[in-house]
Amino acid sequence: MPNVPETKLKGNGTQSMDRESAASEHDHTSLRLWLRLLTCTTLIENLVRTRLRTEYEITLPRFDLMAQLARHPDGLKMGELSKMMMVTGGNVTGITDQLEKDGLVERVTPPDDRRAWQVRLTPKGREAFEAMAAVHEGWIVDWMDSLTMQEQQQLYELLGKLKQGVREKA
Amino acid sequence: MPNVPETKLKGNGTQSMDRESAASEHDHTSLRLWLRLLTCTTLIENLVRTRLRTEYEITLPRFDLMAQLARHPDGLKMGELSKMMMVTGGNVTGITDQLEKDGLVERVTPPDDRRAWQVRLTPKGREAFEAMAAVHEGWIVDWMDSLTMQEQQQLYELLGKLKQGVREKA
Repeated sequence: MPNVPETKLKGNGTQSMDRESAASEHDHTSLRLWLRLLTCTTLIENLVRTRLRTEYEITLPRFDLMAQLARHPDGLKMGELSKMMMVTGGNVTGITDQLEKDGLVERVTPPDDRRAWQVRLTPKGREAFEAMAAVHEGWIVDWMDSLTMQEQQQLYELLGKLKQGVREKA
Repeated sequence: MPNVPETKLKGNGTQSMDRESAASEHDHTSLRLWLRLLTCTTLIENLVRTRLRTEYEITLPRFDLMAQLARHPDGLKMGELSKMMMVTGGNVTGITDQLEKDGLVERVTPPDDRRAWQVRLTPKGREAFEAMAAVHEGWIVDWMDSLTMQEQQQLYELLGKLKQGVREKA
C-alpha cells in the first residue's frame, strides 16, 4: 500500500486477547495505535458499564445522557444532546423517554422558542446523578493511576492534538 | 471527594460539542482524560462506521469480526472471538449468523474436539476482507497524521501502560 510509513512500534507489545488481536505483525504504526486506543476505551467502558449496572442498576447510555444534562442546568435540545453524545438522534430520544418515565429528566419548552423542546434533569435526577458521579470519578481515578500525573497530562495533550486533527480531516 | 488529586489539565481545551462536554471545570485530571479518550475513540469509530457502510455496505461489528478471523486462519471458538471483540457471546453469535448467511464465514468442527465449533473466513470472506482492510488502513493512517511518528509511538506506549494498569485493577 502506498503512503504508509514503514515504522514499526516498539514496546508494550502485550499479547492479551482483545481488540488489538486484530493487528498483524505487518500492520503499521497508525493501525496498531488505533486498535490499542479502541482496546483501552472498550476496556474502561466495559468496566464502567458493569459497575453502573451492578451498583446503580443504570445503563451506560442513561448515565452518559444525565452527565451531559448535569453540565447544562437550563436544558439541552435533542440535537445538541445527540451531538454531545456522538450518537444518532433516535438513540437519544429512546434514552430520554426511559429517563422521563423514571422521573429523572423532564421535557420543557423554552419561552423564546415554543417549538423547541429541551430536556433537563429533574431535582430527583440531579440528586441521583450527583451521587453516582462522585463514585464514578473515584473508579476512573483508580483505573488511571498506573499513569503518573505527568503521563496523564502528556496523554491528554496527545489526544487533544489527535482529536483536532481528525476533526479537521472529517 | 477524597483521594482525588487537585491537578488541573492544561492546554488543548477545545470547546467542541462532544463527549468531553460532560466534563466540568472542577473535574480532575483522570476524569477529563477519560472523557477525551472516549471522544477520540468515538470520533474515529463513527467515521469508520460511516465509511464502511457507504463504501462497502458492511456494519462495523461485521468488519471487526472478520478482522479477528483474518488473523486466525485456522478459526476461532466463539468464546475466543467474544473475548477478542470485547463483547458478550450473544452479540458474536448474531454477527456470525449474518456473515455465514452471506457466505463470508463458515462454522467448522475441529478434528480434535468434535463438540467445539469454530468459525473461520471462507475464501470469499478472506478476499472481501483483504480488499476492505487495505482501504481501512489508509483511512486510519490519514486520520492519525496530525501526530508525528514520534508522537504516535509515545501515545502507543502511554496507552500500553494504561491498558496494563487497568487489567491489573480489573
